[in-house]
Amino acid sequence: MTTSAHDMSLAQVVAVLDGFYPPETAASWDQVGLVTGDPAQPVRRVHFAVDPTRAVVDEAVEAGADLLVTHHPLLLRGVHSVATTTAKGAVVTTAVVADLAIYCAHTNADIARPGVNDALAAAAGLSDDCAPLGMEDGQPIGRVGRLPEAVTLREFATRLADALPATPVGLRVAGDPSALVQTVAVMGGAGDDRFDDVRAHGADVYVTADLRHHPALEAREEAGDGPPYLIDAGHYATEHLWLAAAASRLAEALQARIVTHVSDLRTDPWDFTVGRPTPDRTPQYSRSSHES
Amino acid sequence: MTTSAHDMSLAQVVAVLDGFYPPETAASWDQVGLVTGDPAQPVRRVHFAVDPTRAVVDEAVEAGADLLVTHHPLLLRGVHSVATTTAKGAVVTTAVVADLAIYCAHTNADIARPGVNDALAAAAGLSDDCAPLGMEDGQPIGRVGRLPEAVTLREFATRLADALPATPVGLRVAGDPSALVQTVAVMGGAGDDRFDDVRAHGADVYVTADLRHHPALEAREEAGDGPPYLIDAGHYATEHLWLAAAASRLAEALQARIVTHVSDLRTDPWDFTVGRPTPDRTPQYSRSSHES
Amino acid sequence: MTTSAHDMSLAQVVAVLDGFYPPETAASWDQVGLVTGDPAQPVRRVHFAVDPTRAVVDEAVEAGADLLVTHHPLLLRGVHSVATTTAKGAVVTTAVVADLAIYCAHTNADIARPGVNDALAAAAGLSDDCAPLGMEDGQPIGRVGRLPEAVTLREFATRLADALPATPVGLRVAGDPSALVQTVAVMGGAGDDRFDDVRAHGADVYVTADLRHHPALEAREEAGDGPPYLIDAGHYATEHLWLAAAASRLAEALQARIVTHVSDLRTDPWDFTVGRPTPDRTPQYSRSSHES
Amino acid sequence: MTTSAHDMSLAQVVAVLDGFYPPETAASWDQVGLVTGDPAQPVRRVHFAVDPTRAVVDEAVEAGADLLVTHHPLLLRGVHSVATTTAKGAVVTTAVVADLAIYCAHTNADIARPGVNDALAAAAGLSDDCAPLGMEDGQPIGRVGRLPEAVTLREFATRLADALPATPVGLRVAGDPSALVQTVAVMGGAGDDRFDDVRAHGADVYVTADLRHHPALEAREEAGDGPPYLIDAGHYATEHLWLAAAASRLAEALQARIVTHVSDLRTDPWDFTVGRPTPDRTPQYSRSSHES
Amino acid sequence: MTTSAHDMSLAQVVAVLDGFYPPETAASWDQVGLVTGDPAQPVRRVHFAVDPTRAVVDEAVEAGADLLVTHHPLLLRGVHSVATTTAKGAVVTTAVVADLAIYCAHTNADIARPGVNDALAAAAGLSDDCAPLGMEDGQPIGRVGRLPEAVTLREFATRLADALPATPVGLRVAGDPSALVQTVAVMGGAGDDRFDDVRAHGADVYVTADLRHHPALEAREEAGDGPPYLIDAGHYATEHLWLAAAASRLAEALQARIVTHVSDLRTDPWDFTVGRPTPDRTPQYSRSSHES
Amino acid sequence: MTTSAHDMSLAQVVAVLDGFYPPETAASWDQVGLVTGDPAQPVRRVHFAVDPTRAVVDEAVEAGADLLVTHHPLLLRGVHSVATTTAKGAVVTTAVVADLAIYCAHTNADIARPGVNDALAAAAGLSDDCAPLGMEDGQPIGRVGRLPEAVTLREFATRLADALPATPVGLRVAGDPSALVQTVAVMGGAGDDRFDDVRAHGADVYVTADLRHHPALEAREEAGDGPPYLIDAGHYATEHLWLAAAASRLAEALQARIVTHVSDLRTDPWDFTVGRPTPDRTPQYSRSSHES
Repeated sequence: MTTSAHDMSLAQVVAVLDGFYPPETAASWDQVGLVTGDPAQPVRRVHFAVDPTRAVVDEAVEAGADLLVTHHPLLLRGVHSVATTTAKGAVVTTAVVADLAIYCAHTNADIARPGVNDALAAAAGLSDDCAPLGMEDGQPIGRVGRLPEAVTLREFATRLADALPATPVGLRVAGDPSALVQTVAVMGGAGDDRFDDVRAHGADVYVTADLRHHPALEAREEAGDGPPYLIDAGHYATEHLWLAAAASRLAEALQARIVTHVSDLRTDPWDFTVGRPTPDRTPQYSRSSHES
Repeated sequence: MTTSAHDMSLAQVVAVLDGFYPPETAASWDQVGLVTGDPAQPVRRVHFAVDPTRAVVDEAVEAGADLLVTHHPLLLRGVHSVATTTAKGAVVTTAVVADLAIYCAHTNADIARPGVNDALAAAAGLSDDCAPLGMEDGQPIGRVGRLPEAVTLREFATRLADALPATPVGLRVAGDPSALVQTVAVMGGAGDDRFDDVRAHGADVYVTADLRHHPALEAREEAGDGPPYLIDAGHYATEHLWLAAAASRLAEALQARIVTHVSDLRTDPWDFTVGRPTPDRTPQYSRSSHES
Repeated sequence: MTTSAHDMSLAQVVAVLDGFYPPETAASWDQVGLVTGDPAQPVRRVHFAVDPTRAVVDEAVEAGADLLVTHHPLLLRGVHSVATTTAKGAVVTTAVVADLAIYCAHTNADIARPGVNDALAAAAGLSDDCAPLGMEDGQPIGRVGRLPEAVTLREFATRLADALPATPVGLRVAGDPSALVQTVAVMGGAGDDRFDDVRAHGADVYVTADLRHHPALEAREEAGDGPPYLIDAGHYATEHLWLAAAASRLAEALQARIVTHVSDLRTDPWDFTVGRPTPDRTPQYSRSSHES
Repeated sequence: MTTSAHDMSLAQVVAVLDGFYPPETAASWDQVGLVTGDPAQPVRRVHFAVDPTRAVVDEAVEAGADLLVTHHPLLLRGVHSVATTTAKGAVVTTAVVADLAIYCAHTNADIARPGVNDALAAAAGLSDDCAPLGMEDGQPIGRVGRLPEAVTLREFATRLADALPATPVGLRVAGDPSALVQTVAVMGGAGDDRFDDVRAHGADVYVTADLRHHPALEAREEAGDGPPYLIDAGHYATEHLWLAAAASRLAEALQARIVTHVSDLRTDPWDFTVGRPTPDRTPQYSRSSHES
Repeated sequence: MTTSAHDMSLAQVVAVLDGFYPPETAASWDQVGLVTGDPAQPVRRVHFAVDPTRAVVDEAVEAGADLLVTHHPLLLRGVHSVATTTAKGAVVTTAVVADLAIYCAHTNADIARPGVNDALAAAAGLSDDCAPLGMEDGQPIGRVGRLPEAVTLREFATRLADALPATPVGLRVAGDPSALVQTVAVMGGAGDDRFDDVRAHGADVYVTADLRHHPALEAREEAGDGPPYLIDAGHYATEHLWLAAAASRLAEALQARIVTHVSDLRTDPWDFTVGRPTPDRTPQYSRSSHES
Repeated sequence: MTTSAHDMSLAQVVAVLDGFYPPETAASWDQVGLVTGDPAQPVRRVHFAVDPTRAVVDEAVEAGADLLVTHHPLLLRGVHSVATTTAKGAVVTTAVVADLAIYCAHTNADIARPGVNDALAAAAGLSDDCAPLGMEDGQPIGRVGRLPEAVTLREFATRLADALPATPVGLRVAGDPSALVQTVAVMGGAGDDRFDDVRAHGADVYVTADLRHHPALEAREEAGDGPPYLIDAGHYATEHLWLAAAASRLAEALQARIVTHVSDLRTDPWDFTVGRPTPDRTPQYSRSSHES
């Protein structure tokens, strides 16, 4: 690797990113910042992705990137080995051998302004001045705001789907498609532990991801058949929009002395769906039954 | 309520159900058995459902049922109140007022033979002699077996979808649709903590539900692009098939002195989906990108 | 149940009770508020009792009560079933079937002013302006004050016995009956974890209940033969006096639109005593012994 | 202190006591064995008492005892000081200065045969071949047996009172005095965590001590108005009878080379009672009430 | 023991010591203050030592001391026996029989000003106005300061050795003997959990004791071959200097109504060393090796 | 890196090492096995060292080693980053970039036969058939054996020093240099939690390392002035001897298809000592003192 006098060092780029997403604002259980790399190494090309998967790291290496910025930590749980016998060890080894630094901004990017949830709120049609949905470790998380005017749940979900990156699964929606919604709560990534906050804000609809059967069903039971309705928009999709905003902001702050790239690789694990979709909503109220 | 000399008592019916699904085989954290009811009350009509939702209990009450058998516990977490100010309190109150006993067979039904996982294994095309997938609290859980012949992942998923009750979400699949699969692991309900067992058995595909982004993506990363592939078939759908089998078995054991009914109410929380399905698989490998 | 336009709703009555005994002032481990009932149901007749036993609930149901206010929570430990196979399940079932709401004010009534400990302090002859004995979860608990003039321990105990509801056990006293006492600490219910507070206040006598051998004996050992002396006045008896005060206060606040009743059923578990009472005090100092 | 060639050493006496009550059979949380003393010191006079109170130690010192054997540990909770600023420090200091060794046999004496519970069982009229009531830390605790013939609860309690050392409080009894009892469970000392065992054995009456309001009332509620009835016979009283048996056994084993003495000092903390005894049982069913 | 009207009582002496070293400033896990003794006993002769070993207590008893002040607690972990079957029990018994009170000032003396770390800082050549090294339980611990001028590590260590009591082991030093040091951190006793603080202060050398292989090696690895260098000066030696200062201060405060004595007994456990000392530093960089 | 058909793969070498030191015999808290490397990479040159320090890894890289076998784990505590901002991250990065695999055999090598403690036992003059000193996680640890004949403590320590690699600190010894020792307990590395085992075996001397003031002093106090004596022979020194044995065994098993090398770099952190050695033993008994 040749270094020119005009190159930014990794330390310099990290300092800017730490300014955007202060590490001390991350949740106590989180692991953010540099995962691989040397502060003195030059940085000219920066990739951005939601997850540091092998495909993403391979893409970054092939493109000659010096730094990969991801939302999800590569080593959230501490590791005792980086041998290639595990997938995470193989990713670390590939990055280290290729002089690819990896930097993560996770819950510190979730709560930053602008940050992950602002990008998601914008995709949901909310304006910039949303309130926080709740607090975690003393930091505001999630967003809640009001649409300019009420729309049907189906219309809202469709607009949101148009704004998010497409995935094979699409968006799962719980609620009457013709119900009107105006107050919207959003939480990028897994959000099924925040229903109390959603109800406290009187939200009509809650956009998040990774909703499991029991929490989602219990939330629907508490709601009767009314609001808050639920939209599971996909973990990857709800967090991807932030990447372009972060890339632009970094390029601007560094006066274009670096080149940025947002990966188009979908890191949502699902590749396709099968199964006969039932007609919307109606079956919920069918009372057909058979006696044995 | 009038009682005739020929009526079964709740105690008698519970004794038969406890014989099918011994409560002592339930997981240590589980809560099974009677939730409401009096052992002396007569039982003539028994409903079956995956979840004791308000709609399910209303349906049972309207139909004049004396007993509702569900897979999921109503009060898995202990409650300090059954006032109607919570959804669970309202369900308890409705059932108690209507003399509807509620009985739950959960992890004891999961591990029973025949039980929940046998019904799911049959839907996946496996024969009766599947091996256990793993152990929990000293009990065998899940099933693993081999199909008579290898089929493509898409074909396998499609056949499974045909055998399960339809839901708006359908089945989510991770893997190459044209890959061949033959060894199949199944686990009804939430199964994203069992990947080690799935790999230890050399399964080609794992059918379960409630797969969250991080565990599913990590499992796919460990798998490279190969097996084990993943199918999230829906929590409700993977556990529903067992109901009819349990109902028939109970009716037979009681020599038809009771009437059974399996509820058709879908208790999966999702009502519809939106979003542009992308072509299967292809986007994963697209390398289009934009530099800012 | 017929409802007239003039009836109070349960929600209205609960709002008044919550004002008297704010639920957020209860100890963190406590479970207060509604245990059964529907906020919309009418309330015309309110019973009060220390414990929601089967006899108490039967009495309330027979009297046509709509609401039972108790000091002790029915479901302090969370339950997973209200089937009649347990005593608590039977109580819940009886109340729900009879439309009897149950409301509990426990540690929030202990610390309220006026509250449980004020009623006990008054029975002990203390004036209204007692200081708190100690703090728990940030709330003042117990009371400590001075009698107008010193009296002997026997005289003090006898007066207290006259003021409390009679039970077969009576009051147990540790100390020299002829010793003079003036500074008095009181704690309704179980209080053997508060001796440090009692000593810090220089109390001459401590009135509480449920004193076990080891804590009581250790407290007496620390005291030498002097103060603080101990009176175990019975858990039920020390908490019963508050009921009449709470009933009057509720009736007044609701301008007599409800009828109140304080149960006379003794819920202290002890029915009688046997055993030869030894002469007071003397044996403690006897030095008779036999050598084997 | 002068030592003669014929004196037993403390080490020799402890070896015999350890043989009666093996320390390794004590509960894991217990602290048994020597508390003060030097293995080489001579032992000629041995006192026995339930509790090592200051009065008991003073009595032993005044009598010239070399060893005090107690049931309750002096230092169950570890201490960081034996200065005389605490009661326990004063007891230790007094004993050490007077060359008084203190030895404790607690849960190892409870479970021994013959041991504390055998002495209590005998006082209750049971024969020598009682079964264990339950298990703790792998050791059998408590006893359960049958009387030669059924007697009324009042008669049983009265006979028991006659057999136990008298205390001011006497015995507290819960249950119908005229009910017949035959199967008897006993547990010396605090026993309100053993109701499950008592019910599992079908006991008609349970003799123990330190019964607090909530566990006792819940046990009575589960019992309906029937068995198992409860007798709280006093912590000190239920454990005192064992002392004489242990003293005789030691003297015999050592062929009378020591002199033993059982202290008559009552270490029950209660000195007298006050309060109007109500007529047995009747008030429980009174339905008198006043409406405000 | 005869007491004259002019004698100080133990309570009076303890009050002065508590004023120097307030017990409430000790760490939460620590156990300070009186271990043996009676507040009313007279005190004329006070010994001081780092550890209350048997030899130290014997020396104090032989010298007719009434009070032994030590730095280390005798009973840091609670004891359940003071029988002579353990070393600590034997020490307690000896002291109690001889009317020797034992008083401990541990972490409260570490953080006091003047205190243990001030004496150590002075031995290291630092002035009186050192800053705290870090915080524990809300109290400042350790000291950090700057030497008037930089000296080599070897020179610094040699001067420190001259100021401390001699022990067979001497001082262990990690670092280049010719490196210059000026900023010095000190922590009497075991200090291998404070490297973060040492680095945060930019210390050139850290003087403490009880440094184990792994923490010490990891600290050296983080340091590269540079500062902070480490000196393990011995637990006993780093805490001994404070004794004379405390003795003088006490004598002065009590206007010489007591006689003080600082024990010269070395309580460091090591008696001698063996082994060929290698030439300083050089071997670390040798690259000689043998292939098998 | 060029690979020839005759090269061993890392997987093959690891399989042999795992056979010598089965990973499943490591303690539950330990982290053994591969830390860096790819199972498919060729291995021709293997280095051995106690600690994977930067100097050791640099030496191995400079020598062209493919594999470094160490006793201590590099990543005992899990890491969330291998960036070069920490010493451990720098070591990992250096190794990964240089294709240097690192393999650790820690507690599994301690308990193996032959293993770390056998090499230490041999250095102490014990024969091959030593008994285990104790058990940890179900595995035997440490060794205890008898010398052919008793020698003085000084002679024993001197012989041991001659057998171990030299370090600046040498060996610290607690005990009378002229006392005779014959039964010897050894535990490589930190062993101050094993004194109970040492006493249970009646050992005259205990050879281990990392002995801190309090455990060592308490052990000496329990010992009176007699055995067991203590030798702190240094963590690095007690574990180094095993390296040559392991290297020979590996070379033999692989029929010399690899080249092995044992590093001579001392990884003990101490570089030199200062301080006036006092005459052996004598000061312990000096009684000189000064009164202030």
